[in-house]
Amino acid sequence: MLSEVNLVISFVALVGSYCCPSTCFYIRNTMNPDLQRERETACFNPELITNLLDGSTERTRRRREVEALALNDPELAHEDLNFLSRSERYEVALRKSALLFQKLKEHGISDPDEIYQFKRSVHLGRPEPLDLHLGMFVPTLLSQATPDQLDRFFTPAWNLQFIGTYAQTEIGHGTHIRALETTATYDPSTQEFVLNSPTVTSIKWWPGGLGKTSNHAIVLAQLYTQGQCRGLHAFIVPIRELGTHKPLPGIEVGDIGPKFGYDEVDNGFLKMDNVRIPRDNMLMKFAQVEPDGTYVKPPSDKLTYGTMVFIRSMIVGDSAQMLSKACTIAVRYSAVRHQSELRIGEPEPQILDYQTQQYKLFPLLATAYAFHFVGQYMKQTYLRITGDINLGDFSELPELHAQSAGLKAFTTWIATAGIEECRMACGGHGYSRSSGLPDIYVTFTPTCTYEGENTVMMLQTARFLVKSYSQASSGQRVAGMVSYLNDYSSRQIQPHPVAARPTVVDINDLSSLVEAYKLRAARLVEAAAKNLQAELQRRKNKDDAWNNTSVDLVRASDAHCHYVVVKLFSAKLSEVTDTAVHSILSTLALMYALHGISKNTGDFLQAGVLTEPQITQVNQRVKELLAVIRPEAVALVDAFDFKDQNLNSVLGRYDGNVYETMFEWAKKSPLNKTQVHESYYKYLKPLQSKL
Amino acid sequence: MLSEVNLVISFVALVGSYCCPSTCFYIRNTMNPDLQRERETACFNPELITNLLDGSTERTRRRREVEALALNDPELAHEDLNFLSRSERYEVALRKSALLFQKLKEHGISDPDEIYQFKRSVHLGRPEPLDLHLGMFVPTLLSQATPDQLDRFFTPAWNLQFIGTYAQTEIGHGTHIRALETTATYDPSTQEFVLNSPTVTSIKWWPGGLGKTSNHAIVLAQLYTQGQCRGLHAFIVPIRELGTHKPLPGIEVGDIGPKFGYDEVDNGFLKMDNVRIPRDNMLMKFAQVEPDGTYVKPPSDKLTYGTMVFIRSMIVGDSAQMLSKACTIAVRYSAVRHQSELRIGEPEPQILDYQTQQYKLFPLLATAYAFHFVGQYMKQTYLRITGDINLGDFSELPELHAQSAGLKAFTTWIATAGIEECRMACGGHGYSRSSGLPDIYVTFTPTCTYEGENTVMMLQTARFLVKSYSQASSGQRVAGMVSYLNDYSSRQIQPHPVAARPTVVDINDLSSLVEAYKLRAARLVEAAAKNLQAELQRRKNKDDAWNNTSVDLVRASDAHCHYVVVKLFSAKLSEVTDTAVHSILSTLALMYALHGISKNTGDFLQAGVLTEPQITQVNQRVKELLAVIRPEAVALVDAFDFKDQNLNSVLGRYDGNVYETMFEWAKKSPLNKTQVHESYYKYLKPLQSKL
Repeated sequence: MLSEVNLVISFVALVGSYCCPSTCFYIRNTMNPDLQRERETACFNPELITNLLDGSTERTRRRREVEALALNDPELAHEDLNFLSRSERYEVALRKSALLFQKLKEHGISDPDEIYQFKRSVHLGRPEPLDLHLGMFVPTLLSQATPDQLDRFFTPAWNLQFIGTYAQTEIGHGTHIRALETTATYDPSTQEFVLNSPTVTSIKWWPGGLGKTSNHAIVLAQLYTQGQCRGLHAFIVPIRELGTHKPLPGIEVGDIGPKFGYDEVDNGFLKMDNVRIPRDNMLMKFAQVEPDGTYVKPPSDKLTYGTMVFIRSMIVGDSAQMLSKACTIAVRYSAVRHQSELRIGEPEPQILDYQTQQYKLFPLLATAYAFHFVGQYMKQTYLRITGDINLGDFSELPELHAQSAGLKAFTTWIATAGIEECRMACGGHGYSRSSGLPDIYVTFTPTCTYEGENTVMMLQTARFLVKSYSQASSGQRVAGMVSYLNDYSSRQIQPHPVAARPTVVDINDLSSLVEAYKLRAARLVEAAAKNLQAELQRRKNKDDAWNNTSVDLVRASDAHCHYVVVKLFSAKLSEVTDTAVHSILSTLALMYALHGISKNTGDFLQAGVLTEPQITQVNQRVKELLAVIRPEAVALVDAFDFKDQNLNSVLGRYDGNVYETMFEWAKKSPLNKTQVHESYYKYLKPLQSKL
Repeated sequence: MLSEVNLVISFVALVGSYCCPSTCFYIRNTMNPDLQRERETACFNPELITNLLDGSTERTRRRREVEALALNDPELAHEDLNFLSRSERYEVALRKSALLFQKLKEHGISDPDEIYQFKRSVHLGRPEPLDLHLGMFVPTLLSQATPDQLDRFFTPAWNLQFIGTYAQTEIGHGTHIRALETTATYDPSTQEFVLNSPTVTSIKWWPGGLGKTSNHAIVLAQLYTQGQCRGLHAFIVPIRELGTHKPLPGIEVGDIGPKFGYDEVDNGFLKMDNVRIPRDNMLMKFAQVEPDGTYVKPPSDKLTYGTMVFIRSMIVGDSAQMLSKACTIAVRYSAVRHQSELRIGEPEPQILDYQTQQYKLFPLLATAYAFHFVGQYMKQTYLRITGDINLGDFSELPELHAQSAGLKAFTTWIATAGIEECRMACGGHGYSRSSGLPDIYVTFTPTCTYEGENTVMMLQTARFLVKSYSQASSGQRVAGMVSYLNDYSSRQIQPHPVAARPTVVDINDLSSLVEAYKLRAARLVEAAAKNLQAELQRRKNKDDAWNNTSVDLVRASDAHCHYVVVKLFSAKLSEVTDTAVHSILSTLALMYALHGISKNTGDFLQAGVLTEPQITQVNQRVKELLAVIRPEAVALVDAFDFKDQNLNSVLGRYDGNVYETMFEWAKKSPLNKTQVHESYYKYLKPLQSKL
């Protein structure tokens, strides 16, 4: 039982969608000659980078082993999802979700990372109807149920007899959960809670698996007892009858309809009309309602804080995965595709030879690497700080909280835009579902709004930055990633504190560039803090002043996150021992840093960090680096080690047989099931016969 | 017959997808109170702006009349497309396309603009299977067929007996059409052309309507006669049998499979194996092949040039339309949606009151207006220059060609990103198909790659800019939008020509900002031209030098286009007579110009156009303008005058009844057709019964 609990806890990691398995075979018979040449001439061994991304040679080996168990399992095979209706896609996903449990037991997979890898490979990186059962329902039971409640609910949940979801958001309420309207009123005469959705805006909306799959929901509702509102609490509400799966009395439940993506998931609505549940269906580990209705307050809720931080940290890793996937497709296709003329009279060159194509893709490739290392750092930091917290030390939690919020927003915004850039870099064919790119986009873009809307996240980070700045200004030393603010506190009253700093940045030296990003962040945090102060002095109240500065605050957070990413990328290089790998990763780090400067030149000029001639040099250097990365690009994406099934892209195939596969794929299009579409007989033939 | 020809010519305008109809009624019974208040407190009459966008009061009236004919026609009604399969969507669209012809005749609509408005309203701004028949097949007949050929093909095409498409792109060949591989070999013994797709890469790919709808295609192929290749020519190829619609011998034709969007369109493939067509199926108005195989060269092909320019100019208008649609949805929803706390203890504010939300939406709103005016200018310029061309004056064509290429790329990139920004500004609900935003995005984003891939377009503009720069440098005066280069020619040998210029920009004066944009463009064109020169001096050949400078060249084009947009927005204000309208449009123009500076501060600092303190003022001023636009925002989107059917968005409804409608919409989701999904019986019940 205990191992099952651990197994389940590990499933917290499974919310969201991940994709990265694969084994690379460098020799194939039908390899596209361009790709073959690209691979033969690369200056480093991509396997070494794969190991670096996995953590070790052994971890790469084991990951591939676990992934192969799923990818080679004929029971988990299915038709191309692009050709199925939403209802069919839901069905495929549900079938695989049900099989997943059985397969994990069969293969004896119990390590959290391995479960995660296996699940990713079963669902090919796509969301599925049981995500919230595994990722929220069960973990919430584990963290908030009493031992008695665990006895009643855990085993049935683990065996999929109870399938649950987590019903928090309402149609009228998202990020600001205090305003939720659903009520749970305690009736001491029957010792029951009566649940209601009192308004249209209070209808529960969005929870995954709620529409068709779940028979239980953990419902967040305003608790009323003894005539008083006691705020939000969690209740286990049976919503469908066991055995028939029909909605229970008072329950109106269903699917919220088609979305941009997430076709496999039955995101649902739930409207409750005097739904009665027993008193002990309130999750009572912390707060309680006694039989007579007496309310017992919870002690504290710092651990909830931790779960959010964990999920956001994981999303940073997702940004890396999804952007890497898109880069793999776009770079490989750009090596296979020949188009136009570079030199008059010569054959059409690979489009990867165009500087503009390189300029689209290589900074994104560098970004994908940067985000991988940031993801690793966030995971390690989370584990370290969780260890501290278990020992009672909460000191680093505020920074981790701020960091995870900001980096979640920073990386998801950039990866989202980057995926689309990759798609468009594939020209018309990127728009075909066969490219895999539209799917990557629609699967990933929700990360910008879920688990904390990105702008709200940036403002949370800003709150921490401004607080740290004011601490530093008042002489307290601040620690961690914001320690640079210590250097700025003394100068805050001078008119141009930063601009007065002598320019010492060497644009070819990564540590010097880290310093430049630090100075930029410092200036923007300082500027935002001062603007906030100025707003306050105009006798605005605190909240209005904050709102009127929020554009500056978001910019400050963005610059801070950018600095953190450059710093972590740079720091990672010290771990790399292989000379060739060190060299190419240093080039990518330099590309990441310099490209970021060239896209934000004003900030660096205004901060007095760089001079105008230096900016010109930066732009020139970026172009030179494109040429350095060019011959290594295919090997750099190979190193991400995505298996073809997982990329699910005719453009990104490892063997480069793009056009043949695209033609075969198209022939399977549902519209080609008949030679003549039925609408011809309905609308065209009658019209033509009239003539 | 002649009027029919005119009617058809006007259909050239119909490629792409447009949406803007609607009548605004300012009084409704069930109006959301927030929206009502927003409308009551706006300082200007939105109807006046609607008239400005349409061109006159009369044109607004007539547009609404034409649109109403389509929108209120019960024969054109159908179920929500979001709930239909692709095959069903294709069928709905085909039915409406067939009806369209009949309805145009019924209503006596023959003015090109009105046909365009009517078609937009019939298809609710969506693409449809006959787009290429109307937009390319018929117009190509008209421009390239001989009188005899017109006699044979035009009337059947106009009556939809012949349905045609335009088959140019191949699976391995897009923008660079000279490399197309399809062959048409003349056989004098039978006086036929033999068409072949000799390789996989030569399969025709993408043409709309090719997959299932068309029975003819105009095929672009390399002409071989008397043993020689004569380059690309157009051939009318029957592909499906009249009466049965079955593919003819040697023809393999079908749908290319699902795409990101365009579900209604059967983009298709065509593989030809020794397909024989009579000699007089080659379009012979210009080039000819005589019965014995003798090839007669065409005189010139400047008119093709004109068609491309026209379509690209129209796409600029599309950018405005689609971005306006997205802004309408996001702004209205932001006025209805209440979330979080601005002031502690007070009710949740409208999300439009958050500065960060304003900062996302109002610059886009300003951009939408800017693009409308640019679209109007492009259309007028096209008509004017076409008039000149008809009089034999080609002098302005090169600039128009460069302008339309660059502005097509500039506006589609920005509108594409802007639509997604609007979607994400609607939070989770933006991700629902009910928001209408995913659909707007996937329908619009192909404009970035079709009709000339955007980067290629930017480089075409750059070629014109560099040429103009070098003309100006050698003392020739250049005219039109690039005339600013005349001022720079004299200084090109100085080390810091532009930075030396005294700063005179007044950031609150629009004409001064136009000057600032001009200086920035001049500097970037100059820098790109000099970098190109430097590359050439490193003894690179001309083509390599161009490629190695292409990143700079794209930047220069971007800055030039940005200048043109600011200039045209500013110029438009002089036409506005109403004081209140003039005031709000001036605010938007200022927002557009200042926001563009704040996003590109480095360029303005490097050009010495603005000082660092001025940049700080610009950022501050942008925030102030947000507050000025805030109370006018809803009226500003109302002025775009989109009818609800056309927005097809529960979030963007004119009456603001967002949540009720969303709930009703969701209930219609296909997954809700049964209470219990069949997969429950297949996968969950057996599993649960085992326990």
